[in-house]
Amino acid sequence: MKYTLTVLVENQPGVLSKVVSLFARRGYNIDSLAVGTSEDPAVSRMTIVGEGDAGIIEQVEKQLNKIIPVIKVRRLGAAGEFTSCELMLVKIDNRNIAEINGIVELMKAEVVGVTKNSLTIRYAGDHEKCETLYSLLKPYGIREVARSGSIAIETT
Amino acid sequence: MKYTLTVLVENQPGVLSKVVSLFARRGYNIDSLAVGTSEDPAVSRMTIVGEGDAGIIEQVEKQLNKIIPVIKVRRLGAAGEFTSCELMLVKIDNRNIAEINGIVELMKAEVVGVTKNSLTIRYAGDHEKCETLYSLLKPYGIREVARSGSIAIETT
Repeated sequence: MKYTLTVLVENQPGVLSKVVSLFARRGYNIDSLAVGTSEDPAVSRMTIVGEGDAGIIEQVEKQLNKIIPVIKVRRLGAAGEFTSCELMLVKIDNRNIAEINGIVELMKAEVVGVTKNSLTIRYAGDHEKCETLYSLLKPYGIREVARSGSIAIETT
Repeated sequence: MKYTLTVLVENQPGVLSKVVSLFARRGYNIDSLAVGTSEDPAVSRMTIVGEGDAGIIEQVEKQLNKIIPVIKVRRLGAAGEFTSCELMLVKIDNRNIAEINGIVELMKAEVVGVTKNSLTIRYAGDHEKCETLYSLLKPYGIREVARSGSIAIETT
């Protein structure tokens, strides 16, 4: 079962390491991790997507709450709806500009870099849409890709 | 001096912990961290933004290269131009829909959730533009914000 956690932590060196080690020590896999500032500059917000059964999720939440600089742990989807999205940069051979541009327009992606050999495309969307765009672009020769982890917020 | 590193690592449990601990142990601060898949499913790509002088950056690169599941460390900007961007979700009071919508259109952001009390806005752009949008939205009552770390790719 896939789960998404939002973890608010004090913005101090070493906190990220404590959180990540907790997962590593117990052998719990992290599918994706994103760390950024929150609405309070002293507080960082991590979005962690993992996979595990209900028992593992409960353990993870309990253990995270024990780490001192952790302020709040919230499991998204438990109390209401949430929206999540990811960010992707794809560098691709530019031999088929017209076709690639068609895909870019269709998906509402954006070209952020052009050289004589390559195009760099930026896209923000949910996990499935990122996968779709990636597979549409793949036949044209992907040179490099950088992806963020998921970020998520409760919409209700 | 701000620096951006791209670190390709084998996609195994515990690798993230090794990389993050390296920074924590030496007291090097991480400004932002994003982890996602790369063009090879067996390889994860981390983008790390940190701050330090040339000596620290050299040390970080050297130490990262010593970690076994690390495949490649590259400092962006050293060999050519690069583009970087971040992702942001902002939940905001919806008392001033027309004005907020004006800002959303101006910045080419997107409304991804609407309830009777709040709007959720998604935005992808470079760090400065994310900061600009955030400060434009702030007066309208930000309830919550989730941000990814930077992801980056060489465009040359």
